[in-house]
Amino acid sequence: MSKLVIDMMGSDLGSAMSKEAVRIFHSVHPDCSLILVGKQDELADMKDFTIIPADDVVSMEMGALEVLRKKDSSMVKAIEAVLSEKADGVVSAGSTGAFLSASTLILRKIPGVIRPALVTSFPNLKAGGFTTVLDVGASNANTPEELAQFAFMGSIYAEKVNKIKSPRVALLSNGSEEGKGSPESKEAYKLLKEDARIRFVGNLEGSQLLSDGADVVVTDGYSGNVMLKSIEGAAKGMSGLLKKAFKRNFWSKIGYLLTKKGFKEMKETLDPKKTGGALLLGINGVVVKAHGNSTPEAFKNAMELAYRLSEAHVVDALKAGFFA
Amino acid sequence: MSKLVIDMMGSDLGSAMSKEAVRIFHSVHPDCSLILVGKQDELADMKDFTIIPADDVVSMEMGALEVLRKKDSSMVKAIEAVLSEKADGVVSAGSTGAFLSASTLILRKIPGVIRPALVTSFPNLKAGGFTTVLDVGASNANTPEELAQFAFMGSIYAEKVNKIKSPRVALLSNGSEEGKGSPESKEAYKLLKEDARIRFVGNLEGSQLLSDGADVVVTDGYSGNVMLKSIEGAAKGMSGLLKKAFKRNFWSKIGYLLTKKGFKEMKETLDPKKTGGALLLGINGVVVKAHGNSTPEAFKNAMELAYRLSEAHVVDALKAGFFA
Repeated sequence: MSKLVIDMMGSDLGSAMSKEAVRIFHSVHPDCSLILVGKQDELADMKDFTIIPADDVVSMEMGALEVLRKKDSSMVKAIEAVLSEKADGVVSAGSTGAFLSASTLILRKIPGVIRPALVTSFPNLKAGGFTTVLDVGASNANTPEELAQFAFMGSIYAEKVNKIKSPRVALLSNGSEEGKGSPESKEAYKLLKEDARIRFVGNLEGSQLLSDGADVVVTDGYSGNVMLKSIEGAAKGMSGLLKKAFKRNFWSKIGYLLTKKGFKEMKETLDPKKTGGALLLGINGVVVKAHGNSTPEAFKNAMELAYRLSEAHVVDALKAGFFA
Repeated sequence: MSKLVIDMMGSDLGSAMSKEAVRIFHSVHPDCSLILVGKQDELADMKDFTIIPADDVVSMEMGALEVLRKKDSSMVKAIEAVLSEKADGVVSAGSTGAFLSASTLILRKIPGVIRPALVTSFPNLKAGGFTTVLDVGASNANTPEELAQFAFMGSIYAEKVNKIKSPRVALLSNGSEEGKGSPESKEAYKLLKEDARIRFVGNLEGSQLLSDGADVVVTDGYSGNVMLKSIEGAAKGMSGLLKKAFKRNFWSKIGYLLTKKGFKEMKETLDPKKTGGALLLGINGVVVKAHGNSTPEAFKNAMELAYRLSEAHVVDALKAGFFA
């Protein structure tokens, strides 16, 4: 049975949002034990759950180093509760930098992991399902050895969570040929070619990411973050153009009514809220970061993601992988 | 009066495509003098233009080093003709790596330029017009000093070609705060803050690229290429979903007919063929790379781009800038 700790105060939208998310999640997964961390008066109506009081809140602007001084914050107390309450993991919508560094320092890396990676999923528009991408921003730069480890961790993740047997692992690059790539990715290519534990399929260009190019895509945190945000921006820009096309005149508005259902499906396929957020891989515990401006549904999906990771015993699988 | 050299053989689609492009371009710009380079028998029907015969063709797979041994190729002869015929520039749809390295070696860098950059334009979906992005793939990695020079070159380009007074220059980054970025971009930030010649507006995230975040966006060639291709892939993926939404049933097909005009406009806004291709900045001459699978219209647009660069005296402006 899974046990998760929830930082109730991290989001831009306050505890009303996270309380609603917790209620929805609990109605779907009554078997999952939840520990809520936050201001006692704001959580007074959540008596069905274990409450850990925390008076302070980590602001969105707070950096990686400042957070540890915030010992009474809901974020730090939530992470610490993973250890003290023997929970499987923690979910927060607070500052990414603060959450990643506090999680790493408090829960510590799995022995053998050089550097944890922030993982997210992109929809595979061709074959359905999802493509796992890491790192999307835990680091600003990565060594070839770190990239090679990301490939291994991502492969275990895709197998355990996305249930893909022998997942195809690719290196993000500026060309599909072997000689292409940043200096670091070129060196990583050599390491991955020799790694018998994974199914390495070579370089992949950004254009192939959404079209079934691979099951796991490995990149340094800087380029990965640029890619993630560029795709988000492109999708948003196109949605704007789409709206404009529909609002053009009377007939196009009728046209919208006739095609609405199809577009709703399309929007859902692309909705980043559906994946619920990103997770930090390589840590002793499930660490899921929800979007800062999460709706109750998005925050609930982040909790779902943490639950899936916990039920799939991803952390144990990684530990076993690095021990082998 | 501008004079351009055209590599007629570089494209995947052969000389029939480029001949049609030349005819269209010539009908619009009869004042521009054109020199066509390619197989004499294939160009026999192009007697209105100066022809330079070239028996060989550089293949799409050919790398940067091999091309120079192909002395009889249309690509190498076209680049050499910029010097021998005192032309303003050259257009080719051939292998990017080969074209960039041969252009750099034959035409040479403008004195003071550390490294040329591949430049492309993204549509500004919010304010209209275009955003200039460099480098999108001439290099695999760049030093802070190279990034700072890209900012200066891009600023001159946006002013001369896009006619933007005092263009806003931003550094692509994984966060908008000053401390964010790759190790190289963080150092470049410091250099750009001190550079009085440009209007530096700080870091820009990939999500802001299409929404009027800046007029010039500076990035290393690896991340820039990843971004370019990710956005292309996202746009293609969304177009596919769009088609699916319209083909859903009888009513959605009617809906398509009612909204067709608006979608045509949308498609045109996003069409990479409209920008015609990428150009290499920092070289003694206008160097424009058309897409390898260019249609006649796309190749003609690449010629238009070269023409605009030539008429705007971008190379002279860069030389003056580096001399100052």
